[in-house]
Amino acid sequence: MALKIEAEEMAAFLEEVFPQVRGMFAIDRLDEELLVMRLLGDERHLRPGGTVSGPAMFSLADVAAYVATMARIGRQALTVTTHCSIDFMRKPAAGRDVLAEARVLKLGRSLSVTDVLLFSEGSPEPVAHASLTYAIPPAR
Amino acid sequence: MALKIEAEEMAAFLEEVFPQVRGMFAIDRLDEELLVMRLLGDERHLRPGGTVSGPAMFSLADVAAYVATMARIGRQALTVTTHCSIDFMRKPAAGRDVLAEARVLKLGRSLSVTDVLLFSEGSPEPVAHASLTYAIPPAR
Amino acid sequence: MALKIEAEEMAAFLEEVFPQVRGMFAIDRLDEELLVMRLLGDERHLRPGGTVSGPAMFSLADVAAYVATMARIGRQALTVTTHCSIDFMRKPAAGRDVLAEARVLKLGRSLSVTDVLLFSEGSPEPVAHASLTYAIPPAR
Amino acid sequence: MALKIEAEEMAAFLEEVFPQVRGMFAIDRLDEELLVMRLLGDERHLRPGGTVSGPAMFSLADVAAYVATMARIGRQALTVTTHCSIDFMRKPAAGRDVLAEARVLKLGRSLSVTDVLLFSEGSPEPVAHASLTYAIPPAR
Repeated sequence: MALKIEAEEMAAFLEEVFPQVRGMFAIDRLDEELLVMRLLGDERHLRPGGTVSGPAMFSLADVAAYVATMARIGRQALTVTTHCSIDFMRKPAAGRDVLAEARVLKLGRSLSVTDVLLFSEGSPEPVAHASLTYAIPPAR
Repeated sequence: MALKIEAEEMAAFLEEVFPQVRGMFAIDRLDEELLVMRLLGDERHLRPGGTVSGPAMFSLADVAAYVATMARIGRQALTVTTHCSIDFMRKPAAGRDVLAEARVLKLGRSLSVTDVLLFSEGSPEPVAHASLTYAIPPAR
Repeated sequence: MALKIEAEEMAAFLEEVFPQVRGMFAIDRLDEELLVMRLLGDERHLRPGGTVSGPAMFSLADVAAYVATMARIGRQALTVTTHCSIDFMRKPAAGRDVLAEARVLKLGRSLSVTDVLLFSEGSPEPVAHASLTYAIPPAR
Repeated sequence: MALKIEAEEMAAFLEEVFPQVRGMFAIDRLDEELLVMRLLGDERHLRPGGTVSGPAMFSLADVAAYVATMARIGRQALTVTTHCSIDFMRKPAAGRDVLAEARVLKLGRSLSVTDVLLFSEGSPEPVAHASLTYAIPPAR
């Protein structure tokens, strides 16, 4: 499925709609198969010991599912998260960025379901696994 | 079940283990039946329009489940979230604090399950509903 | 919120739309506040030891959320489960029926969210806790 | 990771511990990378229209996660499901078997997390997506 928003335009769109998270996330890859997003190092999100906090991982999974959905449906500001299930499976490695791999499993008229795996950069085993549902407002 | 940590001591404990969230949360009530936690207003967490963001609601649910569990098992720093399912059901009211009501549904030897309802202060209908599992490290 | 379908009519409706589960479930209580459904004893659903299986508990939670939603929106045959999160917390007691207490947390135009607690009859501690989302088809 | 139970032995083990589901499931593939299980056609599980019911899909996901875990840890009869999150995304195709692809994302000492995708045989788009946690009893 062809994307309606490419990586560069998406980064600008994110800064516009979520100015409060400016500098927190970067898009490493965005194509029809896969989105890879990076949670940039930020002292605010660290637990003692230098690992990334659970809420910061949730935020990364949430924005990744949002971006993967928006890339397919185009700018729809009223699209909102209705559900997230997230398993925290391993402690993220200290001092390394966390990456999200997001795949849209379903894109319906009124909702999307996105699978997200989170990794510490350079490690093959996922630190967390999430499934997010976004509600898409009815087209006018 | 008698609590091992009361509200005042818990507030000090939270500041000690999570200094990065200082000033974000307050304990309104903590007893054997119910914990009520408050997400304090903080510009960082607001979406355009003045409502509380999804990640901030996740953080509140997560810390509420942690506090409810800790109050029952005592200080166990290695207790970690292993799962969260959260439904976002309504937009929080602008300009009002969000409150979490947490009830521990199960306290086993190796895990706890906590039900959390989130409300905009003064509204009876929940804005979100979460279930969180914490893994409790084996006793020495 | 006034119910559109009362208990007796609901029981007949269930038999009509799900003939394959005839005799599996009974409605103990159905009013605006709470639905209580009973999973009737049935050898098919038992694990060795005489306790109710996980899939049978899932079925009970699913049908309870369906009934609680239908009671509020009226007969809409195309209403379908889109999500279930379920925590299995305790082993059900052998030889006792399992009861579901279902509460509709949100009834929107396109989806409902229902909280379901499952108990072994006569025990105060829940054996399982579920949250189910049903998608409601657009009104014509 | 080498498997401790191969497909043929696993099929016999399933019949032994869950005699009530005899003939419901078959193992199409079981190796270190992937488990594929098949829900065999069975009138009991069908919805009007000939499609597979939600509870039957839950059962398939649950047994697939059980088999994938058991294959890695060996026979541990007390291993039990503690959580399942499942998204139902599409209606299964009428008259076709449903297949589950299960991948173990984490195998810890006390719990496993397994990702399961369900498909109608011959269709590339998943009908459901589940994540299941099994609690593994402490080794003696």
